[in-house]
Amino acid sequence: MIEEIKNRIEGLRKLMDKQEMSAYIVPSSDPHISEYPAARWKSREWLSGFTGSAGTIVVTADKAGLWTDSRYFLQAEEQLAGTGIELYKLAQTGTPSIVEFLSAELNAGETVGFDGQTYSAAEARSLKHILKKTKGLSINSSVDLIDALWDKRPPIPTNPLFEIPTELSGASVSEKISEINNSLFNAGADCTVLSALDEIAWTFNIRGTDVDYNPVTIAYAFISEKESVLFIQPQKLTDEIATGLKREGVILADYSMICKYLSNIPKEYSVFVDAAKTNAALFDAIPSDCTIIEGVSIVAHLKSIKNETEIKGFRNAMIKDGVALTRFFIWLENKMAESNVVTELSASKKLSTLRSEQNQYIMDSFSTIAGYADHGAIVHYNATEESDAILKPESLFLLDSGGQYLDGTTDITRTITLGKPSDQMKKDFTRVLKGMISIAKCKFPEGTRGSQIDILARKALWDAGLNYLHGTGHGIGHCLNVHEGPQSIRAEENPVPLKVGMVTSDEPGIYRSGEYGIRIENLVLVEEDSITEYGRFLTFETLSLCYIDTTLVVSSMLSLRESNWINNYHQMVYDSLSPHLTDEENIWLKSKTAEI
Amino acid sequence: MIEEIKNRIEGLRKLMDKQEMSAYIVPSSDPHISEYPAARWKSREWLSGFTGSAGTIVVTADKAGLWTDSRYFLQAEEQLAGTGIELYKLAQTGTPSIVEFLSAELNAGETVGFDGQTYSAAEARSLKHILKKTKGLSINSSVDLIDALWDKRPPIPTNPLFEIPTELSGASVSEKISEINNSLFNAGADCTVLSALDEIAWTFNIRGTDVDYNPVTIAYAFISEKESVLFIQPQKLTDEIATGLKREGVILADYSMICKYLSNIPKEYSVFVDAAKTNAALFDAIPSDCTIIEGVSIVAHLKSIKNETEIKGFRNAMIKDGVALTRFFIWLENKMAESNVVTELSASKKLSTLRSEQNQYIMDSFSTIAGYADHGAIVHYNATEESDAILKPESLFLLDSGGQYLDGTTDITRTITLGKPSDQMKKDFTRVLKGMISIAKCKFPEGTRGSQIDILARKALWDAGLNYLHGTGHGIGHCLNVHEGPQSIRAEENPVPLKVGMVTSDEPGIYRSGEYGIRIENLVLVEEDSITEYGRFLTFETLSLCYIDTTLVVSSMLSLRESNWINNYHQMVYDSLSPHLTDEENIWLKSKTAEI
Repeated sequence: MIEEIKNRIEGLRKLMDKQEMSAYIVPSSDPHISEYPAARWKSREWLSGFTGSAGTIVVTADKAGLWTDSRYFLQAEEQLAGTGIELYKLAQTGTPSIVEFLSAELNAGETVGFDGQTYSAAEARSLKHILKKTKGLSINSSVDLIDALWDKRPPIPTNPLFEIPTELSGASVSEKISEINNSLFNAGADCTVLSALDEIAWTFNIRGTDVDYNPVTIAYAFISEKESVLFIQPQKLTDEIATGLKREGVILADYSMICKYLSNIPKEYSVFVDAAKTNAALFDAIPSDCTIIEGVSIVAHLKSIKNETEIKGFRNAMIKDGVALTRFFIWLENKMAESNVVTELSASKKLSTLRSEQNQYIMDSFSTIAGYADHGAIVHYNATEESDAILKPESLFLLDSGGQYLDGTTDITRTITLGKPSDQMKKDFTRVLKGMISIAKCKFPEGTRGSQIDILARKALWDAGLNYLHGTGHGIGHCLNVHEGPQSIRAEENPVPLKVGMVTSDEPGIYRSGEYGIRIENLVLVEEDSITEYGRFLTFETLSLCYIDTTLVVSSMLSLRESNWINNYHQMVYDSLSPHLTDEENIWLKSKTAEI
Repeated sequence: MIEEIKNRIEGLRKLMDKQEMSAYIVPSSDPHISEYPAARWKSREWLSGFTGSAGTIVVTADKAGLWTDSRYFLQAEEQLAGTGIELYKLAQTGTPSIVEFLSAELNAGETVGFDGQTYSAAEARSLKHILKKTKGLSINSSVDLIDALWDKRPPIPTNPLFEIPTELSGASVSEKISEINNSLFNAGADCTVLSALDEIAWTFNIRGTDVDYNPVTIAYAFISEKESVLFIQPQKLTDEIATGLKREGVILADYSMICKYLSNIPKEYSVFVDAAKTNAALFDAIPSDCTIIEGVSIVAHLKSIKNETEIKGFRNAMIKDGVALTRFFIWLENKMAESNVVTELSASKKLSTLRSEQNQYIMDSFSTIAGYADHGAIVHYNATEESDAILKPESLFLLDSGGQYLDGTTDITRTITLGKPSDQMKKDFTRVLKGMISIAKCKFPEGTRGSQIDILARKALWDAGLNYLHGTGHGIGHCLNVHEGPQSIRAEENPVPLKVGMVTSDEPGIYRSGEYGIRIENLVLVEEDSITEYGRFLTFETLSLCYIDTTLVVSSMLSLRESNWINNYHQMVYDSLSPHLTDEENIWLKSKTAEI
């Protein structure tokens, strides 16, 4: 394998030479700037042998380097050993940035190459600007050198897609296209290019299994008042689905035709582009005579506001998910009581199986984070065969998981104690719980942004000199990506306000390195609270349905309102789930949801 | 007067005609973009007869309009009557913006004029851009047409300035210049232009009385590693002060020389400019070959972090201010008890007198807001002869005031009841108080921005469907402007974090239109709380010293921590002020600061 990697790098250098490129960059993303690229676009992995999810490789005539973050330092060191590729540890003192590296290695006037399909237009533009400014380097983003080298490159996935009927989506394709055109008109634009797979899936009421965890299908789209075109590989569509789409006014074109089509946009058109989500090759294909209007994707805004049908679907998915989780925790408790071996991986597998038994289950919505004891303190932990820990009747177990159902997507974290918890564990848990409740109960004027309320999730932690370094809440798709924008609840500024119909996670945590991690996460829906002479006030309704381990709660640290919240929540969990559980399961759930 | 106004407008039109301008704009600001312009720069007032603090007049060949906000609708209607100047009410449906007005009245290719000295470079740039884009209009910002028309225009103020000794400023002029040069170096700049009067006063340790409320003197400055130049009218300086400044390495030049000087900046220089604080004429005087680095003024950043000496001064100023306020409230209580007539204006006057009796008092730090009953609900209320209300033994009295002392600046609001308060008044007051305390007690990680904690001041109000529409906190100068940046505590995003040494106000409120207003305001200092493994945590220390009217507090609505905060605060107020009060005054204060 090491020799093969070396050969690939050498092969790349020869092609670079032909193209007069002094350096070539291969990032991790795909032409759709996806969180999970399909095998075809794992070019960086193929070139370097490094299998982590994040990393960028840069090759010059005599050097090769891989930049990745602290999650992958160990893994990258092992996988790169002997290949001649040097590891650059991001966010460590002394590590040069890729731009600094290129400025040091190259001379002014030389060219840096990359495949414009693998960079968002915004990133490509910024890279071009800074390389020019720092060292007078040019870029060439028009050639995919990897494609010529990669012998048995996997094809573009062609898994069949399926429709989401209007009974589940709440709006027909033509209604959605009309909404998009209305928004385009308001933004002063004539048309838009869609490249994000979840936006395309939402617009055309289609889903697929081309990538992990996101029920999307590989495609592009173009929307204007005049025509709506879906660029997709024809073999993915049954005649029935094709006919259905055509009936909704959709023109079907081959996936490979997108750039050619864009290059023919009439020059008097104003084109709306989300430069962060559209790859540079697409962006560059738009005729330069067209007016470009940049902004956060119109479909991202529309998609984030869930309609009545989608909300109903979410509620239904939460019940199914809650049933699966309840059965999982019963199973776990029994296994532990019987001293059977349960590991992080076997627990994850069992949970997936229980979810898959639920109606309309498609797949998990992300790779389950099952972190026992100190593993729980690693925020993005994913158990591997090597790390897989056996659960013992002590310490805490953090479980962050979710499912994709035809009627909704779930994402929930619970932390439970497997033995007698320490005082510190209980205090930490209670502080996290207070933060989670504070967001859940929050009432705020219309127009409030997530960054304004983020502190509510942290205050009890900050008061004790604690904090967590991840965001508090992300948007979630309806039978779509578990992470979606444009809203967020985090310290960083995001101008998008929280709007009625948005679904977001509420997930504070605390991580004691080497000891344990605690996170509690529910999904909440933004809805109207009241209208007063001071304006319209909004609030959240909690959607997720699973008991919270109250043996970890220090009651005296809770206000009366907080205790009431837990008791009411537990009553709701029991009332919603019990009709779907057996008598025995209900006895167990009753005790877990008992008043505190 | 009406005829005179008409003649002025006609005179302006003749000059516009000569200059081939189809419209001329006269805003309210001065060449230093000050909150309070000196009489010389009240051009808009001179031209229109409208005396409000905010407003912009636009004159075309056949129309004249004044744009102002709701505070001044009534006043503007009265003052503009008969002049032919039309009133445009800002933020009202149907009111065209100035740009919309100009686009409708003018034809493409025509020119809009204004004096570049009266617009910040940023505003002028944005106006130029939008007029061009919307209607193809040009701008000419190089001529001050008013100067030619205004017969007895007041001169540039030449009040003598005075020094702030290092014992009060905590840093010498040369030390400050060296700090500025360090920051310039870090920003990649060679020099900077200072135009904001408070920044110049801080840098050169000088103060003056050229404008109302801000103890500043009219000047410009230029700072580089090579030379620091203060542009000022020579008659303002005594020989002693001039010698002192020269000894600190300062070059003195005439105020009028600034543009000429800037036009000679070597072209290889990078010039740091705060485009929001530098007028367009200055900005345009910088040679176009120079590299411009834009950002929030370096001096604004440095000035916002108070040094030990300044903090000591603040503490001392708070005691003096607290003594004056205590005496005022005793005086008011006695006057009311004796049924003497006290009005909003006579109360304000008495308070100013009591402040002026304090050591090192210079002036009030802003025009006192004394709002009785429904006047308290007008956020920017300033009593006039006409509006001046008599205080009766009922309803609430809101008093927002402050003083300029050589050792510090104060800004404090108290709301007291003059009779038996209603339940709603008490609940409202308690909610505002809870918000004020929540900020005062807040503990937050280093790097936190004001917009993140703003919600703490509002939460108790939001929970009850209430809100206030102003910010929660502004920075405050040391014997300088009562409003200063760059930090703020408000819902709107501001990227500047709260840093140790910053002083900010903490002033939530609630306004019941037609009934009463409540605001409680203290100044607080950012300081270190602790360092944990999760980082450095900061907190606030309350600086302001004056009792809070606890007869307006609903104790049952307070948490134990909140009650403790009030009792501790009242103990501190009593301990700090009592050594400076008479026995009789102490008895009174003791009862006002009694435990709740």
